[in-house]
Amino acid sequence: MALSKNKIKFIHSLELKKNRKAEKAFLAEGHKLVGDLLGHFHCRLLVATDEWYAANRRAQTNAIDETVMVSEEELSRASLLKTPQQVLAVFEQPEYSTDPSVISRSLCLALDGVQDPGNLGTIVRLADWFGIEDVFCSPQTADIYNPKAMQATMGGIARVRLHYTPLPDLIRTLDRETPVYGTFLDGENMYGEKLSTHGLIIMGNEGNGIGPEVGSLINRRLYIPNYPAGRETSESLNVAIATAIVCAEFRRQAPSL
Amino acid sequence: MALSKNKIKFIHSLELKKNRKAEKAFLAEGHKLVGDLLGHFHCRLLVATDEWYAANRRAQTNAIDETVMVSEEELSRASLLKTPQQVLAVFEQPEYSTDPSVISRSLCLALDGVQDPGNLGTIVRLADWFGIEDVFCSPQTADIYNPKAMQATMGGIARVRLHYTPLPDLIRTLDRETPVYGTFLDGENMYGEKLSTHGLIIMGNEGNGIGPEVGSLINRRLYIPNYPAGRETSESLNVAIATAIVCAEFRRQAPSL
Repeated sequence: MALSKNKIKFIHSLELKKNRKAEKAFLAEGHKLVGDLLGHFHCRLLVATDEWYAANRRAQTNAIDETVMVSEEELSRASLLKTPQQVLAVFEQPEYSTDPSVISRSLCLALDGVQDPGNLGTIVRLADWFGIEDVFCSPQTADIYNPKAMQATMGGIARVRLHYTPLPDLIRTLDRETPVYGTFLDGENMYGEKLSTHGLIIMGNEGNGIGPEVGSLINRRLYIPNYPAGRETSESLNVAIATAIVCAEFRRQAPSL
Repeated sequence: MALSKNKIKFIHSLELKKNRKAEKAFLAEGHKLVGDLLGHFHCRLLVATDEWYAANRRAQTNAIDETVMVSEEELSRASLLKTPQQVLAVFEQPEYSTDPSVISRSLCLALDGVQDPGNLGTIVRLADWFGIEDVFCSPQTADIYNPKAMQATMGGIARVRLHYTPLPDLIRTLDRETPVYGTFLDGENMYGEKLSTHGLIIMGNEGNGIGPEVGSLINRRLYIPNYPAGRETSESLNVAIATAIVCAEFRRQAPSL
């Protein structure tokens, strides 16, 4: 069965957020990503080469609305990647109920306007590594279903829930005792702090950092020390890099058995 | 003075490595990056709007071979960015002598085939943050003068020297006692190790990690623990993220005064 022009058009349409939203769908490409998402999300359409399909039992054992086998040439016409990778799939966007009480039981992230899809996907990937299962995103944050963000998660999105919600309202629902962390140039050296095993770690926009309203609700201001202290540097770290350094330190202080 | 077609062609030609190499030049764009590089690298051509030039004394006080004032429209014709940012400049590639003895005195990075220019630039930016002044790159590593890599350094390239050289030869010149670190899934939990204040930290290719020849020369195998230990995760971290987590831990263990 060939891939119809309409299907190719549908796949390409998912590059735009408004279409993804209308269809409640998103596109994933490549062996690693599609393999990780099958079984986690409902698959509406799987487009794969014969070789890939034959070698991947997950594709055969999971419920998939429609499977189309294609040549590599056909796949490259459907793909958004420069170098298509044997398989792509359209999945349904999951719907999660947002329960802020998870913040009083476990460590969660909040993103206040992270704009770059690659940064967002990289943050989801590292959240997965560090066992952070809930990420709250301000409405201005990039869309995780953007194909570039999705690729950068490397499958981490199968184990991390994203909640798009206004952050000030979210934070105001929390107990006063719940730690709400953010990084600031005038914060406390995080290596001198006893870090909590629950609460919210807020990371800001690439250019502007954490906005003033969210900033005023943060009760634990941290600083990632540069080295040597006080030396002239590039003044800041990429937001995904800073997130990783902070999360690593939280987890170092509370190692699992 | 208008920007000639030839100059625009020259600027655009610097998107390709062979042209950058032939000209021993590279392109930098934007207020932050150009501002940081002026005074550090020899500037052959500065292209700026009147407003930017008037507001930036560094552009007026540094020796610049040629300055061209342009309208925003002209700038956008010269720029490689979607959203041009008031200024771009062509700099000369610096030439550094590679002295491996720096590895026995200070902490250095080595990149074994990092391919993505964005990852490379991000690593230079974080090296700058952590005071790592020398980064050794295998010849297969992306070119730091790639415009995307350069943008991602956010000016860190002004304070970090990159040396393109075969890594096995470099490592073989070191004393046996010099620590050569790498991260591996079967390495030692890095939080249980006493980390050195000098030596080489080797990071590998995005897909394939550290190559076998370089791998066999590593004498300290580290592991970044995930959380909770043993949980199913995305199996790996982005190479720039892993570099950041490792460098942060080295510097945490040896804080400066």
